[in-house]
Amino acid sequence: MTPIRRDRRIGLWLIGASGNVAATVAIGLSALRRKLIRPVGLLTEELPVSSLPLAALSRIVVGGHEIDRRQVRQTIAELHERSGLFSERVIRATAADVRAVERNTRRGIALRENAALAVARVRRDLREFARRNRLERVAVINVASTEPPLRITPVHQSWDRLATALKANRAALPASSLYAIAAIEERMPYVNFTPSAGADVPAIRERAAALGACIMGADGKTGETLLKSVLAPMFRDRGLRVLSWAGHNILGNRDGQVLNSPAAKASKLRTKDGIVKSVLGPGTQTHTAIEFIESLDDWKTAWDHIHFEGFLGTRMAMQFIWQGCDSALAAPLVIDLARLAEYHAATGGTGVMTHLACYFKAPMDVREHQFSRQIDALRRYALDRTRAR
Amino acid sequence: MTPIRRDRRIGLWLIGASGNVAATVAIGLSALRRKLIRPVGLLTEELPVSSLPLAALSRIVVGGHEIDRRQVRQTIAELHERSGLFSERVIRATAADVRAVERNTRRGIALRENAALAVARVRRDLREFARRNRLERVAVINVASTEPPLRITPVHQSWDRLATALKANRAALPASSLYAIAAIEERMPYVNFTPSAGADVPAIRERAAALGACIMGADGKTGETLLKSVLAPMFRDRGLRVLSWAGHNILGNRDGQVLNSPAAKASKLRTKDGIVKSVLGPGTQTHTAIEFIESLDDWKTAWDHIHFEGFLGTRMAMQFIWQGCDSALAAPLVIDLARLAEYHAATGGTGVMTHLACYFKAPMDVREHQFSRQIDALRRYALDRTRAR
Amino acid sequence: MTPIRRDRRIGLWLIGASGNVAATVAIGLSALRRKLIRPVGLLTEELPVSSLPLAALSRIVVGGHEIDRRQVRQTIAELHERSGLFSERVIRATAADVRAVERNTRRGIALRENAALAVARVRRDLREFARRNRLERVAVINVASTEPPLRITPVHQSWDRLATALKANRAALPASSLYAIAAIEERMPYVNFTPSAGADVPAIRERAAALGACIMGADGKTGETLLKSVLAPMFRDRGLRVLSWAGHNILGNRDGQVLNSPAAKASKLRTKDGIVKSVLGPGTQTHTAIEFIESLDDWKTAWDHIHFEGFLGTRMAMQFIWQGCDSALAAPLVIDLARLAEYHAATGGTGVMTHLACYFKAPMDVREHQFSRQIDALRRYALDRTRAR
Amino acid sequence: MTPIRRDRRIGLWLIGASGNVAATVAIGLSALRRKLIRPVGLLTEELPVSSLPLAALSRIVVGGHEIDRRQVRQTIAELHERSGLFSERVIRATAADVRAVERNTRRGIALRENAALAVARVRRDLREFARRNRLERVAVINVASTEPPLRITPVHQSWDRLATALKANRAALPASSLYAIAAIEERMPYVNFTPSAGADVPAIRERAAALGACIMGADGKTGETLLKSVLAPMFRDRGLRVLSWAGHNILGNRDGQVLNSPAAKASKLRTKDGIVKSVLGPGTQTHTAIEFIESLDDWKTAWDHIHFEGFLGTRMAMQFIWQGCDSALAAPLVIDLARLAEYHAATGGTGVMTHLACYFKAPMDVREHQFSRQIDALRRYALDRTRAR
Repeated sequence: MTPIRRDRRIGLWLIGASGNVAATVAIGLSALRRKLIRPVGLLTEELPVSSLPLAALSRIVVGGHEIDRRQVRQTIAELHERSGLFSERVIRATAADVRAVERNTRRGIALRENAALAVARVRRDLREFARRNRLERVAVINVASTEPPLRITPVHQSWDRLATALKANRAALPASSLYAIAAIEERMPYVNFTPSAGADVPAIRERAAALGACIMGADGKTGETLLKSVLAPMFRDRGLRVLSWAGHNILGNRDGQVLNSPAAKASKLRTKDGIVKSVLGPGTQTHTAIEFIESLDDWKTAWDHIHFEGFLGTRMAMQFIWQGCDSALAAPLVIDLARLAEYHAATGGTGVMTHLACYFKAPMDVREHQFSRQIDALRRYALDRTRAR
Repeated sequence: MTPIRRDRRIGLWLIGASGNVAATVAIGLSALRRKLIRPVGLLTEELPVSSLPLAALSRIVVGGHEIDRRQVRQTIAELHERSGLFSERVIRATAADVRAVERNTRRGIALRENAALAVARVRRDLREFARRNRLERVAVINVASTEPPLRITPVHQSWDRLATALKANRAALPASSLYAIAAIEERMPYVNFTPSAGADVPAIRERAAALGACIMGADGKTGETLLKSVLAPMFRDRGLRVLSWAGHNILGNRDGQVLNSPAAKASKLRTKDGIVKSVLGPGTQTHTAIEFIESLDDWKTAWDHIHFEGFLGTRMAMQFIWQGCDSALAAPLVIDLARLAEYHAATGGTGVMTHLACYFKAPMDVREHQFSRQIDALRRYALDRTRAR
Repeated sequence: MTPIRRDRRIGLWLIGASGNVAATVAIGLSALRRKLIRPVGLLTEELPVSSLPLAALSRIVVGGHEIDRRQVRQTIAELHERSGLFSERVIRATAADVRAVERNTRRGIALRENAALAVARVRRDLREFARRNRLERVAVINVASTEPPLRITPVHQSWDRLATALKANRAALPASSLYAIAAIEERMPYVNFTPSAGADVPAIRERAAALGACIMGADGKTGETLLKSVLAPMFRDRGLRVLSWAGHNILGNRDGQVLNSPAAKASKLRTKDGIVKSVLGPGTQTHTAIEFIESLDDWKTAWDHIHFEGFLGTRMAMQFIWQGCDSALAAPLVIDLARLAEYHAATGGTGVMTHLACYFKAPMDVREHQFSRQIDALRRYALDRTRAR
Repeated sequence: MTPIRRDRRIGLWLIGASGNVAATVAIGLSALRRKLIRPVGLLTEELPVSSLPLAALSRIVVGGHEIDRRQVRQTIAELHERSGLFSERVIRATAADVRAVERNTRRGIALRENAALAVARVRRDLREFARRNRLERVAVINVASTEPPLRITPVHQSWDRLATALKANRAALPASSLYAIAAIEERMPYVNFTPSAGADVPAIRERAAALGACIMGADGKTGETLLKSVLAPMFRDRGLRVLSWAGHNILGNRDGQVLNSPAAKASKLRTKDGIVKSVLGPGTQTHTAIEFIESLDDWKTAWDHIHFEGFLGTRMAMQFIWQGCDSALAAPLVIDLARLAEYHAATGGTGVMTHLACYFKAPMDVREHQFSRQIDALRRYALDRTRAR
């Protein structure tokens, strides 16, 4: 294996570049580079993952696509004023870096844009980003708003058919999948941090495999679902019989606003609800709700009520309340994923990056939902690679 | 290894035989034997642990020591009336078996009893229990009220010194340790389900090692602490910085009443508080409180407030509320431990049974506090033993 | 005013006579009569309301209409087994009284029954109930399942038109309104403990006024909404600005099952949601959800998240969790209402019984939603009447 | 009655002038004057209280005593950085006004200072404050740290004896009482916002009555106790039997630190615990805990578990979690109290200001603990006075 240098320049291309998560990534990377904050929440800065020759935090250049006219700095200002994120000192000290990200932002795929032309344009944007910034590699991460679920039809089943349909602009593909195709064609790793379809379409997976592109998703595991992935195994491992698990989420950011539309909500609930059933089996009644409560802004608050039966039919309950700031929880995971995906591609990895399962609500090709095992898998990956060098 | 039969008769000797946990074990074992309930909460009835040739549930005879005049049936009636445990149908159907347990109950060690005589008497009780019931082996489990912490002095450091002091009735040893000595001398496995000293005294450990007796403890992990042992690792593994973890427990049973005494409470708080510090390090402020709220009876309610810092210094919180019935949570663990400890001894095992760590708040000789790893260790033990046969 | 005697015999006629609330009323009244329980939760047994010459608890005869084939004793058995209500001792001691209630139960109005015939039949049932049991008066209380909201059309606006339409079987009226008409025609007080239409239709109110019949409703205020009616005034009175109030209810009884239908849920949410807006004004975002979680049975669990702004724009939160048993909360209110409505009618009262507002989520003709003021109004009523005698 | 003008200049003298509450009062009054914030949380800005001719917010001059060397601006900066209070814009815009408050701050009474000299010095400070700022009247409010409970001895029973003992420096009086004496001697209203003794000593009350000075206290009712004062009456008024009420408070500010000392905590718990017993009677077991959790800073978090029995012995529970910022909750109450106390004195009022009970956990000479009635009393006072004019 070719030795790789930590000081190589890499790119992090964000679909949804002016959104809350992207803005927090932008200001956060700048603050880390300028030593204004500690790398709290980054597994890539802790052993054993940090022993991998990942690109240095200071060598990551951020750019992305965005369909909104809003600039990153506006998102930052709003998160500060409405949700209390970031100190004014950090905002001031990172302002120039944030402008640089804004300059690296390109117009995203519009709703009725011709699909083939859109893919071609996105590919040009990605290439140009890499060239202008002299980047060795670029990781593409989707942090845009959740799309409605994609209904898979025969045209989505093989790359031949899909490619033909694309050329004729007849393929019903959401924007997330067009971005995925563009990244894959450019052999850039593509990571889907949302529940949208992205690369998780049979034809696109076939294409990624053929080209040896790295892909992974779906839906970043930041809060309530993270708790489910440690608590559900605990109930199972203690032999307690969970009768019902009712989760209620309230939040007020644009993510919440988008999820107010029934179609987008359907996508989200699928990934949120799956873990409990998958770990505890069909005997557990599950319910997951998401509601838009404007005043909460970026503070996602979740109440989960877990009703379970123990010995001698005794019925007991556990409840938890999670009060997390979505952007602050998601941003370090996105940075981790960019570094790990780029490293995987840089060292010849291809296909689905199942070792990154711990970052996702619905990890591709992974049936293990227990968080502790997913973390162990990532650690093992790091230890194996470190030893191999 | 000699093949052992599942239909061997074994004994489960409970210190505190008329207490809530013991009474729930007695009625529960009878109900299981009579197929009135399902084995919810018993790991020994689930793969892979169930593949071990453990003694059948129907072959376990229960007896024990008790200092209170109260009978098991009275405790059962009180748990039913005040805490809503057990159906009347189960109480009626198991009444004869419960009487049998009462007949197997002997007077426990009194407060100022001569230590050497007490040990001798307990040994006779244990031997007689085994003989009368034609038991192949007896597991002794301490489920009595929590004792104040034992101050270890030089006399506790070597068996020679301790044995001499015992004979002269000069050894300051709590009852739990006298029972432990009696069990060890009889080569019966001794398991400490409470935070009392029990066998965890250097001199007694030395004696157990010399005689090849199996020991384990301390303090059954049933509720709030079980949650700590899955949640603390989650915060660590996500790189989130836990600033403070404040746990408040309220309960109303006799356990709670005893814990109202500052000395007993000190023992309990030590085992409850240790896990968080052990997993998250000294940077986390911890606070654990236990209060006696009479109306709650056996329903232990816990509120834990976990304050943590994420990316960019964002402060967030998780809170949980646990409403568990202590006896119903503890009883299946006690049954599991009896079967597993007896099996270990039956197959030539000796010393500290570290593979049983998942059952304890403060497992002897085990520094791993992550519940998922402790469960994996037990499963590995079961798989290794099953394959070896 | 004619003196009235406490030992007069009165009737309590329940629409939904085999449902959870009705069954709890039946067993509860019997247990009170037999001095097996204390009158916890009955305002009519506490000063100053108890100083009114209400009919004695032992003189209340229960009967009702029911469309289900289920008997009261089956409901009682199910509530006992699944929700832990009632001791077996009370169930046994009240069995004969419960049978008597069953014998007083008549077939309810079926879905497509002819409206005029149904009203006539119900009137006969009510008269026969009073006659056979030698009752001085009967109070009719609707505790049946929630119906979808009624769309008021011109035919519902005047009694003339409605009566004509009824005869022609052309009046779209839900069963609750047909029962209300029957009661009113019989000059029996009608109380609506559900959010269904009942007597709250302009034409029926007109008729009640013409005949001097007493009516009141709607929707018993038992749990989450009761809390709203003390907490919302507190926030207002402290000048705190409530930004959002998100309430989530989960429950598993038949009430919950019926509310799973969107139409019935709409009725319920209207009465549940109104209080907060009414007290705090339109500036507060409100959200109320009800979900059917089967394992909870009769245990309604509610989580309310109240987000508010204080001085200097500081945003704070209060959350509450309510774990109440719906039937046990509702039954004493129903008994209170029967006694108070009968007393009101017995002493010449007519029209809307606004002094009973404290019992309802959406009290008819009352705009005061603050619980403390509603209670004060009831107390004032009792004091005025007591002094007047 | 002499007409009084809203534009009169009045003084607000704070004992504990650099503490969290005082600093929030200082910045808040400035921000209100400059129209940077809305008067959220001020009853004196809402009808009917606002109809009284209270001194205008812009005419209140702030000063005070402080024993710490810390300046108000440092407290403001710390509250901003650690607890997220105030926007930077407000901090900047109010900086000059805050400096003015600092210039009005005088050295507080030291631990072993001669009592008579201390009183004399404080009186001079108060007079000089009024003179220099041309104030018509000054209200003195104690917002200093909680003191240990005062043991009342014969010397505290009459003013003659106490005055003699004071001259001889033999009277065991805490600082709060010396400030109270100074204010009373100057005929300035004295309000005790803490659980310390202040003016609530028989001899001092005698002196206040003799001089016609206005006094009130004790302990501002801001959060958990405010909830108790609406929820306890609700349980009582519904006839529900509260078995236990267990309240747990965690907080991290200096108030919390002081309360970590058992003596100071004893003062606090007395006022916090009293309401529930007073409303619900001795049958309810109460428990109140306060713990210092440093990371929470000014964010007081409380969990209350209320266990109650309803009809047919059914046991149910309500729990609430309160997450409030102590300073932001207290500051508007302090401003209200200053205006209302000054107005009362200005219009010839004397003695204990019982109409201000709604502001206190343990209101002097008031046995009514129901918040809604206390608020009604204040409103009635305002309406009576308004009409009288």
